[in-house]
Amino acid sequence: MSIDFSRLEKQLAFIKEIDKEKQIFRQTYIADGTRKENDAEHAWHMAVMTLLLSEYANEEIDVLKTIRMILIHDVVEVDAGDTYAYDEVAKETQREREEKAAERLFGMLPEDQATEMRALWEEFEEGETNEARFARTMDNFQPMMLNDATDGKAWEEHQVAVSKILKRNERTPKGSETLWAYGKENYIEKNVKLGHIIDDRRN
Amino acid sequence: MSIDFSRLEKQLAFIKEIDKEKQIFRQTYIADGTRKENDAEHAWHMAVMTLLLSEYANEEIDVLKTIRMILIHDVVEVDAGDTYAYDEVAKETQREREEKAAERLFGMLPEDQATEMRALWEEFEEGETNEARFARTMDNFQPMMLNDATDGKAWEEHQVAVSKILKRNERTPKGSETLWAYGKENYIEKNVKLGHIIDDRRN
Repeated sequence: MSIDFSRLEKQLAFIKEIDKEKQIFRQTYIADGTRKENDAEHAWHMAVMTLLLSEYANEEIDVLKTIRMILIHDVVEVDAGDTYAYDEVAKETQREREEKAAERLFGMLPEDQATEMRALWEEFEEGETNEARFARTMDNFQPMMLNDATDGKAWEEHQVAVSKILKRNERTPKGSETLWAYGKENYIEKNVKLGHIIDDRRN
Repeated sequence: MSIDFSRLEKQLAFIKEIDKEKQIFRQTYIADGTRKENDAEHAWHMAVMTLLLSEYANEEIDVLKTIRMILIHDVVEVDAGDTYAYDEVAKETQREREEKAAERLFGMLPEDQATEMRALWEEFEEGETNEARFARTMDNFQPMMLNDATDGKAWEEHQVAVSKILKRNERTPKGSETLWAYGKENYIEKNVKLGHIIDDRRN
């Protein structure tokens, strides 16, 4: 009797397809500054951070749910590409591009998992539940940490102004006041003082 | 009043240190065959696979615990490097090198988390619990899938014989009979037939 592997084959097709995240490069450099980080590495790092830092969440979170969200939050970039946080033109079409990508990519999975993964991705995007808030805090805190580790390399390359970073991080304290307090002082303000971030607050 | 960040700073030092996993390259190629995969990418991929494939575990598993193990299972390679599965010389000193690495790396964390993470790593290494068995099945199944996706590139480069692959996978069915049945047929035997794996069974 041969086993019916049709469900497994759908799952494996998706798993193989998202291997492409390893070739989608972000603007952030890895900590040694030698190259940019890709989506797979970013998600792994955020997931480990969640294991170790969930105690700082403002509200109690379901760690597994948060990690599930984190692991798949960038899947849509396989089709839609990475949209740099400070690229205003690309951001205009981002939602539409990503919706289409979600349709195709999650649609490769068996229906139950397609629905489940799509819902997790939407929850992350909306950022309203405790888990989504914390996941999004990780999504901002992780690159801040790496930018600081590389002496603000990505910030300098893009000539980023502190007002834009603060605007981008408006919701970061919603996941964790503690991590935001730490990051603001030790990553952002420190790099403003060092001249790696443009200080446009006196205008 | 200033906040005491000493606990957080230990956690962040560890988190920054393990960024080095992004530069530890394995023998397996990513699915497009253009370059080798690193430890961070490998762990991310295994974690997503666990989310989607845990239904095939022989025994019910605690998915969060399995993913925790997977996310940190290669941390020791930051100091000890990657030991190729078929490098018999390196494997002789592997345990000693990895124990020393675990001591230093997990030791960077606050004591409670150091103990917890070290125990998770040991559990993975021993491979006796349901979660560790499934995690180890993922650790073998993921590179098999990528080797197949790249037409057996890593197997060919290392002139690997099927007897060694089967020996290496002796415990793979302990985590999931179903995944092993699929992988044996569709990854291993298929690539033997295609000549990408040496067939030494007739000797």
